[in-house]
This record gives sequence, C-alpha cells and structure tokens, in this order.
Amino acid sequence: MATASTIFSDCSSSTTARLVPLSRIRNGILQFRQSVSVGWKPKNPSLNFISTHGRSSSSIVTVAMATEPSATVIDGKSVAKKIRDEIRSEISRMKDATGIVPGLAVILVGDRKDSATYVRNKKRACEAVGITSYEVHLPENSTEEEVLNSISGFNDDPSVHGILVQLPLPPHMNEETILNEVSIKKDVDGFHPLNIGRLAMRGREPLFVPCTPKGCIELLHRYGIEIKGKRAVVIGRSNIVGMPAALLLQREDATITIVHSRTKHPEEITSQADIIISAVGQPNMVRGSWIKPGAVIIDVGINPIEDAQSPRGYRLVGDVCYEEACKVASAITPVPGGVGPMTIAMLLSNTLVSAKRAHNFE
Amino acid sequence: MATASTIFSDCSSSTTARLVPLSRIRNGILQFRQSVSVGWKPKNPSLNFISTHGRSSSSIVTVAMATEPSATVIDGKSVAKKIRDEIRSEISRMKDATGIVPGLAVILVGDRKDSATYVRNKKRACEAVGITSYEVHLPENSTEEEVLNSISGFNDDPSVHGILVQLPLPPHMNEETILNEVSIKKDVDGFHPLNIGRLAMRGREPLFVPCTPKGCIELLHRYGIEIKGKRAVVIGRSNIVGMPAALLLQREDATITIVHSRTKHPEEITSQADIIISAVGQPNMVRGSWIKPGAVIIDVGINPIEDAQSPRGYRLVGDVCYEEACKVASAITPVPGGVGPMTIAMLLSNTLVSAKRAHNFE
Repeated sequence: MATASTIFSDCSSSTTARLVPLSRIRNGILQFRQSVSVGWKPKNPSLNFISTHGRSSSSIVTVAMATEPSATVIDGKSVAKKIRDEIRSEISRMKDATGIVPGLAVILVGDRKDSATYVRNKKRACEAVGITSYEVHLPENSTEEEVLNSISGFNDDPSVHGILVQLPLPPHMNEETILNEVSIKKDVDGFHPLNIGRLAMRGREPLFVPCTPKGCIELLHRYGIEIKGKRAVVIGRSNIVGMPAALLLQREDATITIVHSRTKHPEEITSQADIIISAVGQPNMVRGSWIKPGAVIIDVGINPIEDAQSPRGYRLVGDVCYEEACKVASAITPVPGGVGPMTIAMLLSNTLVSAKRAHNFE
Repeated sequence: MATASTIFSDCSSSTTARLVPLSRIRNGILQFRQSVSVGWKPKNPSLNFISTHGRSSSSIVTVAMATEPSATVIDGKSVAKKIRDEIRSEISRMKDATGIVPGLAVILVGDRKDSATYVRNKKRACEAVGITSYEVHLPENSTEEEVLNSISGFNDDPSVHGILVQLPLPPHMNEETILNEVSIKKDVDGFHPLNIGRLAMRGREPLFVPCTPKGCIELLHRYGIEIKGKRAVVIGRSNIVGMPAALLLQREDATITIVHSRTKHPEEITSQADIIISAVGQPNMVRGSWIKPGAVIIDVGINPIEDAQSPRGYRLVGDVCYEEACKVASAITPVPGGVGPMTIAMLLSNTLVSAKRAHNFE
C-alpha cells in the first residue's frame, strides 16, 4: 500500500477557500445549505504546523514528514479497477452460460455539460466491462410525460436491467415523480424510497444500495478496516450519500452520528470518530484537529478551488484537508482517486447484480 | 407542571435488576440482543448519594430532595388525554360535515393474552373518540393466506382507514410478507418500508409515522423542548421505535447518534446528549452518571421487575433509573405514565389523518 505524501502545497481554511465560480451542486455531493460553524481550534498544535493560510516552504514539509506518521492511502482508483476486472469476468461467465448480457439505460434531459460528461463516462465504463448501454437524450424543454414514457419503455424492456436518470433534471420537472417511475427492480441507483426504507430497517434487504455510499463501504472492506463496534461519523445528510452511508455503517454495527449544517461544534463530534465519511462539498472543511489520531477518513467531496499554478486555473480538493489529515489518520482516501472511481464501479456492480437476479443466475 | 419525586424506593443496578420471568419482548420494545457494556462510574458522586444496591432511609431522601434540583415530569398521561380530546372534537367536526367516521381495523392472530389486552385497549380508545373499530380474530393455526385475505378485505373496504396487524405473529408466519400486504394508504402503524424510506429521505413525506416515536416527539413539542441544533442520542435501533425516532429527530435538525447493543461505552455518548430517547427494554440501564445535567429524557422502556412489596409481585420501571435521572435531567418521562399513553393516542391520530386524507377533508 502507498503512504500519503503532501500532494497539495497548501490547505486553505474552509472560511477562506474560494470555490471556483463554475462550482455547483455536483453529482453525488450536496453543498451545505448553511455554513457550518467551524471552530478552528488546534488541539494538538504540533500536528498543525503548516500555516493554514499561507504556504509552507518545502523544506519544512520535508523535515516534518520525516518525523510525522503518515496515513495509508486508500487507493480507490486501483480498487475500482480491480472491481471492474471482477465484473468483466463475471459478465463473461454469465454470457457464456446464458447468452445474456447486462444492460444499463441512461436518460439524460437537457444540455448540461457536466451531465453529458458523466453519462459519457458511464457509457464508456459499461462498454469496458461488457454491459450494453442504452441512452435516451431528451431536450431541455421536454415534458415530464416524455421522460416518464422513456422510463416506462425501459421498465418493460427485458434487455435493460438498470435504469439511471441523470440528475439534476430541468427545474420544471418533479424529480420525485420521475424517480418513482423507475421500476424498483431496475433502480440501480438505489434511490427509490422503498430501497432506502429497506436499507434503514433491520431484517430487510434493499434490492440495490446507492452507488457512492456503497463504494465507501467497499473501500473499508477491501482495506480490511473493521466497522463493527466502531464510532462512525458521517458529515452530510443527503439522500444520495450521507444518509445511506450512515445506514450502511449501522447495518455493520457501527455506532453512527450524522453531522450536518445545523450541527454545533462538528469538530467535537468528528474528533471522537474511528471512521469519518464526509460528503458535504466544503473544500478542506475537516481539519487535522477534527480527527482522532488513527481514524480512517473517507472523503466523498470533490471541490474545485482556484489554483493559479494549475493549467486549468483550478484543482480538485476534498472536504478534508488532506495534508493535515494524512498526519493524524491511519488511512485516508485522496481526492481525486479515492471514492470518485468507486461510484461508477458500484453502478456496474449493481447492474450486474440486477441482471443476475432477473435471470436467476448465480 | 409537576416535578419529579422519588417514586421508586430504589434503583437496581442494571446488572443486578431481575426481570420478571414472564417478561418478554413487548410491543414496541425490543430487548438488546447482547448485554451492553455498562460502566457505572459516578462522575458527580454528590448526585448519586442514594445507595444503588440498598435502600435509603426516607429521612435521607427527604433532606436530599430539599437541596437537589428536580426535573420537570413530562406527563404523558395528561398530554395523551388532551390529544384524545382534540381528536374526538375533530372527528365530531368531520362527521357533522361529511357524515363519515374514521375506521380502524385490527387483525389479531392467536391467543396471546398480552396481545388480546393491547387489542382490547385499542378498541376502547377508538370507541372513546368516535372511531369505528373492526376486528378479525384468527386462530393460532391459521395460514398466512387467511391473514393476507383479511388484510386484503380491509384494504378494499372504504369504511376502514387504518389497518393494524397485532404483533407478534405466530412463528410460522412471515411478518414481512404480511405487513407488506397492508395498503400504504392504511398503514397507520407506519411500518411499511415505503413509509420508512420517505421518513429517512429529505424532501419526502411519509404518509404515516410510527406511533411510539411520533409520541416521543409530540411530547417534546408539547413541552416546548427545542430539538433543532441539539445533540440527541437514541438508545436502541429497532424498526418500530429507535430507528424511526432517530429519523424524526434528524428531520427536526437534531444531530443524532444511535446507540445499540454493539456500542462500546454507551455512557460516554449519552452523557453528551441534550435529548435522550431510550427504547431497549433494559430496566434502569441509563444511570444518573450517563446523563448530562439539564438533558431531557424520554424513556420508552416498560420493564417489569420483581417487587415483593407490590401486590402483583412486580412493578414497572423504564430503561432509565428514574430517581437518579430526575436529579440530573431538566425534564423526564415517568414509567408508567410517560410515553406509554402516547402510543395509542398517536394511533388514533394517524387513523384520523388517514380518514381526512381519504375524504379530502381538512
């Protein structure tokens, strides 16, 4: 396993970090609606020697790194690749035995560039593992009925095992109405309230688990990190990441706390956690002082912040201040290359699971 | 408002408290599957002057009570009566305007005495507020299909607005299959996974909220106890109390932690809580030292423990050691007379809500 190094040259305070103007609510990451009360109180100043507002000289960093502990980097990119390889071979086995290939349908409405990129990436990932992908692209001014009709067609199509409606939808559409139309048997996003209800209930099994939180837990499993009996704090309570992540951790017998925008002194809570999953879309919000030494950090945030030295003018950072966290935590996901690649891998996995279930193939 | 006095003469240690042999899993209260690690460490010995294993002389108690702070007693019995009065007048208004009266159907299978008592109490409570009650009593050896047929009949009957299957069912029946048959529009227990899913999701509204947790929150509301921004700990993660109680608190912007049988050092977590809801069925488990001074305690547990001085040979105590807690907490529900009476009041409320919705009456 790799160990973390100081990838970024600074770690902006969350109160001064500037989001790139084009930043908006991203797929899977909701912004806090209100600013979180951020108490920047270094509990162990020796761990926070790097200036929080300026930049440290590289020599100081080098000296520090020689004496500081450094976290295991949870390499989502390579885990996701391994999972995709496993899926590819399972699909091949299924095709040989039954002649059937899993199919994933994506419905895209409107012309958002980021959505188009996500859809393109999903299609490519499908092709790479042998899943047939279907796409309907409807214009921005489509009616809700047209979207519902597309979903209904895929619901009835036996070659489609998963249906994905790319969010966000245009503002004139009711997201709830549209998502509810997806057959629960093809709800590979796992967003149907019946799936969420089963996820919340003991003794019930959801047909599908939402992809990003499933990816977080899969990373913990693949790195042999114990969940049972641990204190886990989830930061963010979105329907698509925070809440289902908390439910998943609880199903594995963690004691969960959900921190959100109305939580006072979140750092007092996070600093008790053995496992932190952060999914709020606040760059570098979780500081070194928020983290218990030895904790495991799963950072779902992907936040662009200004960076004049980058050719693109920005770079991506997580919700967690990586260069501080990697000195306190025992393991941490980087951004990018941590949770990000896991989401699509879990979508492929859910589609395979659905096809196996539909055709009773084990 | 009344203030607490030392109702019980002692507070048995949870490790020494003896459950009455007939005690079993009660309606709404699940026992912990494993014993919780109980660290009885008085943090403020002056608050715990009463012997925990022996009995204090009444003179000491009297002296102590003159100097100790004493919590507001959250009087569930009188709140429930007030709610039943409100429901009665609403039903009368509805009947006058539409001629329609809400109806609640109860399905009882087998001959458990406790179940028969619960059903009888529910029928009486219905009659008292003007809800028509319907009952099907099936023998213990009925088939699952017979139960499903009864439910199906009530699903189709427009005079029935709520359907309640008395739990537990005989062991040869699949509870999930049977509960799933209840129309979500008549699921006044709120146990359907679709209702639980909507409860868990932001921006979604369940048609019904489970009665006992709804009763807990109603008590907080009626006593003007703020939830938003507070730390809340729910002890117990059952589908019918703990988990939905936590979801309800989170919907009102509390920061929730769910403590359960696999939680290590639960007392460290509960002692940070502004609000504690306990629903585990462990007599006197939550000691004074587990509670932050000024916290609010909602005790869902109803546990019979041996008491030679009682004519029945036992008395009922909560999950919380009342005589210790009432000196630390700012407000507390007694057992009995706290949450207990609220459950049926909320069932009547859910039935009224259902009838209003079915007939579009506001």
